[in-house]
Order: sequence, then C-alpha cells, then structure tokens
Amino acid sequence: MMASPSSLSPTDVPMELHALNRNKLLHSFRDHLSLSSRPLHGFIFLQGGEEQTRHCTDHIELFRQESYFAYLFGVQEPGFYGAIDIASGESMLFAPRLPADYAVWLGEIKPLSHFKERYMVSSVYYTDEISKLLHDQYKGSGKPSLYLLHGLNTDSNNYSKPADFEGIDNFVADLNALHPILTECRVLKSALELSLIQFANDISSEAHVEVMRKTKVGMKEYQLESLFLHHTYMYGGCRHCSYTCICATGDSSAVLHYGHAAAPNDKTLEDGDMALLDMGAEYHFYGSDITCSFPVNGKFTTDQSIVYNAVLRAHDAVISNVRPGVSWVDMHKLAERTILESLKGERLLFGEIDAMVNERLGAVFMPHGLGHLLGIDTHDPGGYLQGAERPKEAGLKSLRTSRQLLEGMVITVEPGCYFIDALLLPAMENTRTSKYFNRDQISRFRGFGGVRIESDVYVTCDGCVNMTKCPREINEIEAVMAGAPWPIIRTSIPSLSTKT
Amino acid sequence: MMASPSSLSPTDVPMELHALNRNKLLHSFRDHLSLSSRPLHGFIFLQGGEEQTRHCTDHIELFRQESYFAYLFGVQEPGFYGAIDIASGESMLFAPRLPADYAVWLGEIKPLSHFKERYMVSSVYYTDEISKLLHDQYKGSGKPSLYLLHGLNTDSNNYSKPADFEGIDNFVADLNALHPILTECRVLKSALELSLIQFANDISSEAHVEVMRKTKVGMKEYQLESLFLHHTYMYGGCRHCSYTCICATGDSSAVLHYGHAAAPNDKTLEDGDMALLDMGAEYHFYGSDITCSFPVNGKFTTDQSIVYNAVLRAHDAVISNVRPGVSWVDMHKLAERTILESLKGERLLFGEIDAMVNERLGAVFMPHGLGHLLGIDTHDPGGYLQGAERPKEAGLKSLRTSRQLLEGMVITVEPGCYFIDALLLPAMENTRTSKYFNRDQISRFRGFGGVRIESDVYVTCDGCVNMTKCPREINEIEAVMAGAPWPIIRTSIPSLSTKT
Repeated sequence: MMASPSSLSPTDVPMELHALNRNKLLHSFRDHLSLSSRPLHGFIFLQGGEEQTRHCTDHIELFRQESYFAYLFGVQEPGFYGAIDIASGESMLFAPRLPADYAVWLGEIKPLSHFKERYMVSSVYYTDEISKLLHDQYKGSGKPSLYLLHGLNTDSNNYSKPADFEGIDNFVADLNALHPILTECRVLKSALELSLIQFANDISSEAHVEVMRKTKVGMKEYQLESLFLHHTYMYGGCRHCSYTCICATGDSSAVLHYGHAAAPNDKTLEDGDMALLDMGAEYHFYGSDITCSFPVNGKFTTDQSIVYNAVLRAHDAVISNVRPGVSWVDMHKLAERTILESLKGERLLFGEIDAMVNERLGAVFMPHGLGHLLGIDTHDPGGYLQGAERPKEAGLKSLRTSRQLLEGMVITVEPGCYFIDALLLPAMENTRTSKYFNRDQISRFRGFGGVRIESDVYVTCDGCVNMTKCPREINEIEAVMAGAPWPIIRTSIPSLSTKT
Repeated sequence: MMASPSSLSPTDVPMELHALNRNKLLHSFRDHLSLSSRPLHGFIFLQGGEEQTRHCTDHIELFRQESYFAYLFGVQEPGFYGAIDIASGESMLFAPRLPADYAVWLGEIKPLSHFKERYMVSSVYYTDEISKLLHDQYKGSGKPSLYLLHGLNTDSNNYSKPADFEGIDNFVADLNALHPILTECRVLKSALELSLIQFANDISSEAHVEVMRKTKVGMKEYQLESLFLHHTYMYGGCRHCSYTCICATGDSSAVLHYGHAAAPNDKTLEDGDMALLDMGAEYHFYGSDITCSFPVNGKFTTDQSIVYNAVLRAHDAVISNVRPGVSWVDMHKLAERTILESLKGERLLFGEIDAMVNERLGAVFMPHGLGHLLGIDTHDPGGYLQGAERPKEAGLKSLRTSRQLLEGMVITVEPGCYFIDALLLPAMENTRTSKYFNRDQISRFRGFGGVRIESDVYVTCDGCVNMTKCPREINEIEAVMAGAPWPIIRTSIPSLSTKT
C-alpha cells in the first residue's frame, strides 16, 4: 500500500465560530445605535444566496453561499434568510419549505430542528413565515426596523443586494447602517476563523509542494491545476477553490490573472520556463491565496535566481515589518524599493532608488498591489473604509487596501517582478524614466515572464505570523523538486489579544 | 517512472465542426423562410455568454459558453456576439474591444484575425460595430431582419434570452423562427460532434474504472468525486464536468440528484454499501453522462446482485431495441417491465406484469425518466417539439423526451431501481397496488438505496452504438475492482448515413 501523499485530513468545523461572529456584530451594532441615539430594537436581516442555473438550461452551478451570509450563519444550503433580533440578541434562520418530491430527487427533507442544531441559532422557521414571525417577535412600537445589507464592494465596484421577501413593505428598511459595521467585523479575524484559514493554508501549501514535485517539462499547465485541485479536495475536503487557479509558465507568468476561460492554463511547459502558480483552496468558506514560482525543470538559472531572489527579499522584508499601525501603502513601497535595489544590484537598473520610487518605477515591474485582506472572500471586503480615497499613483492605485494594519487582520503578502512589454517598453522610452534602464542587461529578460511569491499572514500584537508553509528559498525549492521531504505540520492558532 | 494510469490524451478539436453546424442551420433556416414565403435575407444573430461575478464580490466564476452560441461558433471567450448572413451565408463574430490594461492583467489582446482563423468565420469585428456592420452588409431593402434566439427550454422551463446590443432598434427583430429550427439542428449529431462525445465518454469511462479500483471502505464520497475530476482533467484536458458529480453510497444512492451543496457527497463509505456514481466529463462543450453502481467493498452480495442485474437487464434490453422510429416512451416502459419481471422473478413482487405496468408500479422503483438527449447540454434541448405534450402518468411525466428516435440522436440509457420510502410505503399501503408487494422480501431492501446504470448511445440507421465503455457485468466489475486490466481503446466514429 502506498503511503498517503498527505499528512493532513479535514479539520473539524467549529460552528460556534458563526455564533461568535453574530455576537461580535450585535455588540458593534448596538454600540452604533446607542451612539446615534436610536432604539435598540429591530432586526439585522440578511438573505442567503440562491442556486443559479446556466442560461436557459437546467444546468445548476455548484452553489457556494453568499459571503456575508456565510460569515454570520455558516449555512451551506441555498435559499435561506437569517435575522438577529437586536433587542434580545436571538438569531433566527428561515429555511425554504421544500416540496414533497424533493425527497426523491434531492435528498432528505430535514426538519427545522436539524438546522437549529447544526447552525446553533435560537430558532428556525420557514421563509414563508418571515413577515409574521418578525412582527410577532418585535418588542418595539410601530413598524419593526430591518437593517439590510447594502453597500459598495471596493474591489468589484458592485453593491450588495439587500434582502427581499414578500411582506417587506410592512417593515422600515434601513440600508445604510449595517454594511460598514458588518464589513468591519469581517476585517478582524477571531482565533476560530484563523484556524480555518490556517487549515486552508496547510492543505494548499502541501498541494503546492505536491505540484512542484510532479512538475515536468512537457506537461500542460492545466495538469498542475488538476494536481492542486485533487490534492486539496482528496486530502483536505476542499470542494471549492478561493479563485480560479493561475498556472502560468514562460512568458504567460507576466499575465497577472492568467488561467480564466480566455487564457485557460493550456500552454505546454518548456525547458527553461519559470512557472508561476497562484492557487489556494477554501475550507468551510474560509480561503487561502498562495503563489509559488519555480523553474519547471527543477533548477534555477542565474537570471531566474536574480529575479526570484529580488522578489523573495521583498516578501521577507515586508513580513519582517508587518505589525499593527503600519501603513499598507508603506509596505507596498518597501516591497517596490527592495525589488528596485535588487535589480540595481544586478545592474539591470542605474541611479538613485529614491528617485526611482518617486517616478513610480516600481509599478513598471510590479503593477499590482502588494496584497489584500483575505477571509471568506479572496479579496475580503473592508480594504477602504467609507469615504477613504484610493491612491492615484501607478501601482499604488491597484492596492486593494491603503489601511493601517490592525491585530487580527489576515492579509496576503505577494510582491512580484514581471517583464511586461506593455509597461516596460513605454517606461524605457519615457524621457523621465529611460535613464534608469540598463538596456543591454534588461533586454535578455524580455519574454522571461515574471515571478510572484505570495504568503498569507495574520497580524499579531507585535508582528505577524506567516500561515503559508511552502518552500521559499531557492535551495529549498530545488531540494523539494528533487524529492526531499517537506512535511506540513498542522499548527494551532494561539488566542489573540484582541477581543474577537 | 510509474506507468500513466491513462491510455488516452486530449483529442484534437475540429473547429470545422462549428462551420458545419452553421451550414446545417443556414440550410434549414432558408428552407423555413422559403416555405413561409419570406425573403432570404437578414441575419441569424446570437449573443454569447458573459462572465459572472459572485454576488457583490469580484470573484469571477470560471466561464463556460452559452450552449447555443457554443454550438454555432465554438467560442470559448466571454463577451462575443455572432451572426450568419442569410443571403450570403457568411458568418461574423463580434469580439469585445478590450482596454489596454487587459494585456497586463488578463493576457495578450489578440487581433481580430486570430479569432477569424481560430473560429473559421468569414469576418470578425468589434461588438461596438454590430449595428453599423450589419446595416452595411445587408442586401435587402428596409430595416434588416434579425432572427434572435427566444424559446422554451423544456427541462428548466426557462426561456433563452434574445441577444441585445446598442442599436438593436434599427432592426426588425423576429423572436419566433430561430429557436425551434436551431434546437432541432442540435438534436441530430454530426460525425464530428459524435467524435467529441465519444472522447468525453472514453476519458470518463476510464476515470470511472480508476475510481472503482481506488474505492475502499472508510473513504469519503467526495474522494471518489475528486479522483474522477482529476483523471478527466489530468489525462483528458476536461476542465468542466457535464454536471455536478453524484457520488452516493448506501441509502443516499436512492437520492436521484445527490451531490449538490445541500447533500455534498460527504458520507463515509461503509462496508456493505453500494455506490452509485453518476459522473461525466465535458470536452470542448460536448458532454458525457455515465453512471456506475458497485459495492464499495468490491464484492456483490446476493441482494445487491438481484437489484443490479434487474437494472442491467433493463439497460441491455433497451440498447438492443433502440433504433430509428422507436418511441422513447416505449423504451421507458420496456425498462420498467424488465425490472418488474426481475423483481417478480426474485419474489419481491407478485402478480401480472401487465397489470403492474398499467398501475405505474414501475415508477415506484424508477421515478425518473429512462434517459435524455445529450450533447452540449447534459439535458440537451429538443426533447419535446413545439406543441408536444408531456405524458401525465407517474414516471413517464419525468421523461425529458417522448419522441421517436432518429438516426444521429445521442441519448442516455439510464434505468434504475431504487427503494425510496417516500414512494414505496404509500404504494404498499395503496389498495390498488398493495397486492403486488411481497412485504417479507421487500422489507429487507429498505435502506438499500438504489442502483442506476447509465450509458450514452447514438442511434444508427438500424440500431445504436453504446459509447460508454465501463465494466457492466458483475464479474467484470469485481475483476476490475480486484485489479484486472480494463483498457479503454479510443474508437473513431464512422460516417452516419444522415446528411449532417
């Protein structure tokens, strides 16, 4: 019998995690109402996601819960609503009333008590009872207030859709209060949330190692994706990925979001190519987001080492400096500066680093932001507080947050260095920036693609912990690709000092 | 070096397949216009699918093209439109005009000539040129007619959404003519279409065998799903499945559409359980739909053999009788009758088979339809011609088609026999049907779950060909699960006699 390629197995899902999330929201929300002298009653009210069919067909896409609803209730089934009674603190779920033939086609029709127990809520009713139930339970006078979710997602520029149901006209709807408070709750992770993100990191780190070991010249990029997906599902129980796998090799590794339907990981791995694999599994809604870069033939060339080590130094410099109070914009600039210094040290660039930073030369090589909040969404919300403006400068404008870091945040650290003609050629022509480039040296990197190294960290009271466990040093990667062991030991999350 | 667990590799995709599909439609459509004395000009005009984000986030679901658009144009990228000029027969694609920073984030901005060559169309323009271009090319007088796709999908009861674009008011839109003609084109498969469905069957059959071999007591159902997905992607290049995998074991195998988010293949395999695995990969839009049933410990018990062989005899009887002109309703009844005869032979039932069929006793054990058209959609459209009524009787009302079979149809043959309390208990109480049941015998099958055996066949001039290559006989399954070889040999599709 073959030894299992995994030292891990799916971790228990602590459903009290969502009860804690609800409590955290309830306290913040009551504080908010008190501060604005509003009565402490009414309901926080959210609608869960619905299954989607593909165009006009009956093809049903595999359902994944809407993220805010998942945060508060942890419900994996479609068609639910959920409420929190602001006066009593009690939580309610509303389940769809299923037709009798559901039992034949789709499975056991579970009693409401099943959901009450599983999701640890105070009570469960049917969705056709929402209006009556909320009126019956309401302790205030007049029409009950419903605090609905409506607000801007600053990554997509889309607005969340407030809950709707028959009878909603019998309530006073508030569309403003909930979104910023609930979003801010999601920004700071509890120890239980961290434990799930850690597991997603553990199994994904192990899967990255498995992929590294099996990568061979002549394979297709999508085979690396398939190996990753299989490892995280087979041994980690991760049915969903945090995002579509980016499996870019050769010059495709300079395409930041490769891997989608129009660039579907379908190139053949060539000897001498670098691979850039950005892949992360999701476990009970909580995600990971990890990038490894390595030569597909298992041995770094000198040029590959130059670029790789420039990025690794930036990655390590940022992780050494992350702590509460630090500005993420400064961390981005630190990464840029570190990369530019390396490129100058290797004589790809000339001149003063400060001047390069000011001319935004860093954005030529790293056009994306340094990282983003991570949680139930890969680009977790809360990167820009209401009213906060995005930076306007090249590179910085791509930052998904410009905030000061807080203990309990989970954020990706993902510096990269790419040779993208569409950015490099104009910068080499531009009269303000052309002087920095050593054309003789840099020309041999055209077509190189790029390197990205991405880890997920959580911010502690005086620093951060790197949750990602992939080989990072060149000698580690080469050893692992040659078959050296790289055990992943499951780590537990110590309590944080913040009250979460 | 380990031997590859696959004898297959991704087959070439013949893009002329879609040119043939367009020609077939054009000829049918011109015939239709001539018969109704309408002028032979204007455009058949379709809108391809768009990428979807998840709720308010920037999480993009992996795009899969809308099926009618895929049929005619084979385009894998989102955001396209396509037209066929009825007068000239020329085909046009309209590609989205991508912003400059697409090249940095999402990949090379391909020239229009790339799409012209890849998709073998007469010309390619940008989507913002649709209105002008169609007017310029129009050879008739007055406003050009656009024949748009609008019609009922008889499996989902949803309507296809007709194309829309800026300037559509400058055309005469016809919403009625296209849908039935295009749908009927999809019903009869060409040899090139069959070759893709055959490949999807080959790789999926091999993956089913791989899963059978690796199934062990104590595993989780989703691990069987993961093994299947990995095999079809890794060795077949199949990024999409035709549908969410149904990996049901024990009593869950009586849940016909198990495996969705509310019943997510998460049970542990117990010694003595049957597994019912309904899984099929998709290759360049064309799908497969295959079910294997087997004992998870590799050895059939007597009771498992009774139910399995009842279903296998029905499966084989139908395949022996499929040929052009045969009514699918009659095939369904043949399957029912064969199963009832077996159950009677094993003394689970008493009485006259004809009487049982008339009392719809077959639907107690097989509440779903015998099978459905298969192609770019798992439930391929065209099962009910416009105006055709669904049967009303139990079991028959679930049939996705009641048509007479035609050469070139691909249809699934998927009889099943399930012990579903929600159906069995009322039938055993019912005064009309209680007399048929041998309660002493049948009671030991409660909790058994069910067996389904599903193959995909194409109808030839005088019979059908089974495209599915899984072990079916009990001795074959037991041998394969014990390690016996089961090579999958790629088969080519001979030309059919129909003009397609």
